[in-house]
Amino acid sequence: MKVSAELMPPADVNDRMCPSRGVLEHVTSRWGVLVLIALTEREYRFSELRRRVAGVSEKMLAQTLQNLERDGFVHREAHPVIPPRVDYRLTGAGTEAAGLVAGLAHWVERQTPDVLVARQAYDAR
Amino acid sequence: MKVSAELMPPADVNDRMCPSRGVLEHVTSRWGVLVLIALTEREYRFSELRRRVAGVSEKMLAQTLQNLERDGFVHREAHPVIPPRVDYRLTGAGTEAAGLVAGLAHWVERQTPDVLVARQAYDAR
Repeated sequence: MKVSAELMPPADVNDRMCPSRGVLEHVTSRWGVLVLIALTEREYRFSELRRRVAGVSEKMLAQTLQNLERDGFVHREAHPVIPPRVDYRLTGAGTEAAGLVAGLAHWVERQTPDVLVARQAYDAR
Repeated sequence: MKVSAELMPPADVNDRMCPSRGVLEHVTSRWGVLVLIALTEREYRFSELRRRVAGVSEKMLAQTLQNLERDGFVHREAHPVIPPRVDYRLTGAGTEAAGLVAGLAHWVERQTPDVLVARQAYDAR
């Protein structure tokens, strides 16, 4: 059955059955966030991206990229060369998502010193 | 030992040892996102918040609120009444975090129809 956008109720992340919850999880997952931010810089090969996103396993990176590709946020291009080369880049929608995610991540980076002070006060109570 | 913001290197979510990764996970966790968004509306009691954030267990809501309180994003106020009443509201930093998170979530909601179409095309390949 074809998905018809017109027949869908408005998406609502507060509705536990709404597919928007899954989309939100793909862009806010631990590795989804870091992959989107990395791809704002330029296109990456799989192996380069794995080095760029420190700590991700090959399996988790492949799963994260597949989710983002299936949702229409990442374009995957396999080049018919030997050895095989696969590039990943953001789509238009992915660029929008990555901009919002990067804005949040950079705010968190700036806020982190205050968070560490807040945690110290909390733990000392 | 006191945390000294001056002595910290700049936070970097790409560094696997950086505490900003943990902060980012608290505000982008499945329930962290929905709790922050709900608290942009008004302050909530625990039981009200649990109904508002459909699908969250009591244990996960308590853990989510505790993480956000410890990070300085949520203020918890226990009123000395019988039966006990505990209210939760955003702090100044929490209001900033929630604004960014809500912006991302609302973009995801608007994007969801296109994501469902993209998934259908992906699955049909």
